[in-house]
Amino acid sequence: MNTDIDPAELIKKLNLHSEDKQSATELLSSYLQDELNNLEGSQSNYIDELPIEEKQTMYALIAQNDTLADIDLQYQLELHQLNTKYQKLKAEQVYDIRNKYINGSASPKLEDIQKGKEIYDEEDEDIQQDLEYKGIDSFWLTALSNLKSCSSIISDRDSEVLQYLKDIRCEYIPLSKDEDDENVFGYSLIFEFGENPFLENKTITKSYYYANEVDYEGGLVYKFTEVEEPLAWKSDALNPTVEVHVKKQKSKKTGKVRSLKELVEVESFFKFFSPPDLSVLDEIEDDDEAAEVQDELEEQMGLDYSIAEELKTNLIPKAIDWFTGDALNYVDNDEEDEDEDYEDYDSQEDEEDSEEEEVDELSGAPQTQPPECKQN
Amino acid sequence: MNTDIDPAELIKKLNLHSEDKQSATELLSSYLQDELNNLEGSQSNYIDELPIEEKQTMYALIAQNDTLADIDLQYQLELHQLNTKYQKLKAEQVYDIRNKYINGSASPKLEDIQKGKEIYDEEDEDIQQDLEYKGIDSFWLTALSNLKSCSSIISDRDSEVLQYLKDIRCEYIPLSKDEDDENVFGYSLIFEFGENPFLENKTITKSYYYANEVDYEGGLVYKFTEVEEPLAWKSDALNPTVEVHVKKQKSKKTGKVRSLKELVEVESFFKFFSPPDLSVLDEIEDDDEAAEVQDELEEQMGLDYSIAEELKTNLIPKAIDWFTGDALNYVDNDEEDEDEDYEDYDSQEDEEDSEEEEVDELSGAPQTQPPECKQN
Repeated sequence: MNTDIDPAELIKKLNLHSEDKQSATELLSSYLQDELNNLEGSQSNYIDELPIEEKQTMYALIAQNDTLADIDLQYQLELHQLNTKYQKLKAEQVYDIRNKYINGSASPKLEDIQKGKEIYDEEDEDIQQDLEYKGIDSFWLTALSNLKSCSSIISDRDSEVLQYLKDIRCEYIPLSKDEDDENVFGYSLIFEFGENPFLENKTITKSYYYANEVDYEGGLVYKFTEVEEPLAWKSDALNPTVEVHVKKQKSKKTGKVRSLKELVEVESFFKFFSPPDLSVLDEIEDDDEAAEVQDELEEQMGLDYSIAEELKTNLIPKAIDWFTGDALNYVDNDEEDEDEDYEDYDSQEDEEDSEEEEVDELSGAPQTQPPECKQN
Repeated sequence: MNTDIDPAELIKKLNLHSEDKQSATELLSSYLQDELNNLEGSQSNYIDELPIEEKQTMYALIAQNDTLADIDLQYQLELHQLNTKYQKLKAEQVYDIRNKYINGSASPKLEDIQKGKEIYDEEDEDIQQDLEYKGIDSFWLTALSNLKSCSSIISDRDSEVLQYLKDIRCEYIPLSKDEDDENVFGYSLIFEFGENPFLENKTITKSYYYANEVDYEGGLVYKFTEVEEPLAWKSDALNPTVEVHVKKQKSKKTGKVRSLKELVEVESFFKFFSPPDLSVLDEIEDDDEAAEVQDELEEQMGLDYSIAEELKTNLIPKAIDWFTGDALNYVDNDEEDEDEDYEDYDSQEDEEDSEEEEVDELSGAPQTQPPECKQN
C-alpha cells in the first residue's frame, strides 16, 4: 500500500493530461483507491489474505447481500403503496383547497385566515370581510423561481408562459404488472395551465418510472421518464425553447429572394418536457461514440431526475413557503452551495492560521435541530 | 436589499472579531440573510406588501402547513410500522444466519459459499469441504473501525474490548401509547459481547425514542436515548473510559502515607453508552449558564444521534462490506470529506485557470448511477 501519495502532486499530473479525460479518470480513481486503502481498518483484497475457512465463510456472508437486496425491493414496493395512499390524502386534505385559494376559485375560510395570521405572527391588523378574492398572481412562477435547480433554467421568455401556470401536482402511479410480470410503479408530475396566448396544452403530464431493482443503499432507481403529449406551441415565435432566425436566399435561376425560417434551440425550462431520447443510442454503430453519447445522456437524465425529485419533495409540499421565500431558511445547503459560499474565503485566506475552524462552526444551515431521521 | 456584499470582505471582518462569537454569528447571519434576499424570486416580508385580499389568502394558505404536518406525522407512524416489519424480516432471513457464520456457531452452506464466490469473482480456487469453521476474528471491531464517525473515537484500549463484540443489531420499538396517550416509538441498538476479561454485561441495549412531531421536512425528530443497564467493568483499571491515577498523601498527624485512587475521564467509544443527562439543566439557576450548557448538550446529542443513524442505516445492513472495506467505495462523501480531500489542491492551485471544473467532474463517488429516490 502506498502511503506517500501527495494529492497536490497527483492533481498536477491530472492537469498535464487534462485533455485526456480517460487517463485522468484512471489516475484519480487509483488515487481514490489508495486513499481508501489508507483508511484505518480498511484493506484491499482483505478476503484473499484470510485462511481458507474464513475465506469461505466470507463468501457465504457476501451471498447474504443478495437476499437483503430482494427484501429491500419488497420494502420499496410496500413503501410506494404507503406513499401513494398519503399523497392522495394530502391532495384531498390540503393541496386541493390550497389550489382553489391560489387560483381564486374559492374564498379562503375565516378560520384559515385567522390561523395563518397567528402562525405568521401578525397581530395588529384586523381581518377584513366581504373582499373579492382573485387568488395570487404568478404564484407557481414565483415558487419555482426560488428553487435553485429551476431558477437557473427559467429564461425571461419562460417566465411569460409560466405566469399562467395554475398548479403543479404529483400523483403516484400505483403498483401494477406489465406483460412480462415486471413491477410498474412511479409518479407523475402534472403541470396545469390557464388559458394563455402561448400553449395549447391545458395540462402537461411527465411520468417517472422506477426500475425493478434497488441501488446499493436499498433505494429506488429510476428507469425512464415520459411526457404524455408533446408541447403544442401556438406558434414557433411563441415557443421559448427556440429562436426563429430568418435567412434570406436569392435564387440563382430566377433572382428571386425568399425567406427561410430556421429554428435555433435556446436554453429553456420547457426543455424539461422534452427529455433526451435514449433510443438514439441504438442507431450509433461506433462503440466509442456510443459510450460518449451515453455518458452525455446519463448526465442529462441525472439532472432531469434531480429536478423531478426537487419538485416532488420540496416544491409541492411547501409551495407556500417557496412562494414567500421562507423555505430558503430551511433548505439544506448541499455541498455545491457550501463550496460556492466559501470559495472566496478559501482562495484568499487559507494561508492563514486556524480561522477556518471558526468559520466552519458558523456555516451551518440557519436552523439548529437534531439530525432528522432518514428512514432506510 | 444590499446586492453589493462581498463575502471575502465580510469574512475579513469576521476574523477581526473572531474572539467575539456572538457578533461574528450575527454578522454572518445577516450576510446569509442578504444572500437569501438576493436569490431570484425571493423577497423578505413578501406577504406584508401584498394587497389585503392576497394577504388574507396567504394567511389561509399558511394555515395549510399545519394540516400537512399532522398528515406527515401519521405517515411517519405508519412508516415506522412498515420498518418494524421489515427489520424483523431482515433479521430472520439474513442477520441471524450472518451472525451464526460470523461467530462460528454454524458452518456456511455450500450453496452460500458458491454464490458468494461468484459475486466476489473468484474463479480459480476450488471450494474445500469438511473444514472446521470458527467464524471471523474481530469482525465487528473491524467493521466499526471503517465507519468514519466511529474510527475517530475508538481508542487502542477500546479495541481490546471491542474484539469480543459478537453482534450489533437493531430492533424497532413498535408503536404504543404512554399514560398521556402519546405515541411511543423508536428503535434499539443491541451490542452483544462474548465472554471477556473486561465487561460483565453480556448485552448493552441503547434505545432511541422519537418525539411525537415531525420537523420542517416531515421527518422524525429524536426525543431522547437511554441505556438499559449501565456498563459493569470488571475493574476500574479495565474501564477504557477512565485512567486510574494514584495520588500519595501523607497524614499531617501520624506521618503515614496513604494512596488515593483518582479516576480521570479519557476519550472512549464506550462513552456512547453514557449519553449526557439532560436533567442537569433543571439544576442550573443562571439562565445564561443554562443556555450555554444546553447548547453543549445539544451538540453532544446531535453527535450521538448521528452515530446511531450510521450504525442503523449503514453498518448493520452492509456489515460484510464494512468488514472488507468495500462499503467505502459506495458511501456518500459528505461535505467534510470533500473539503478534506481537496484542501491541498485548493490552497496550492486555485490561482490557476479553469482546471477546477475538470476536477469537479471527476470528484464524484466512485460509482456512477442515476440519483436514488429519497422517499418523502
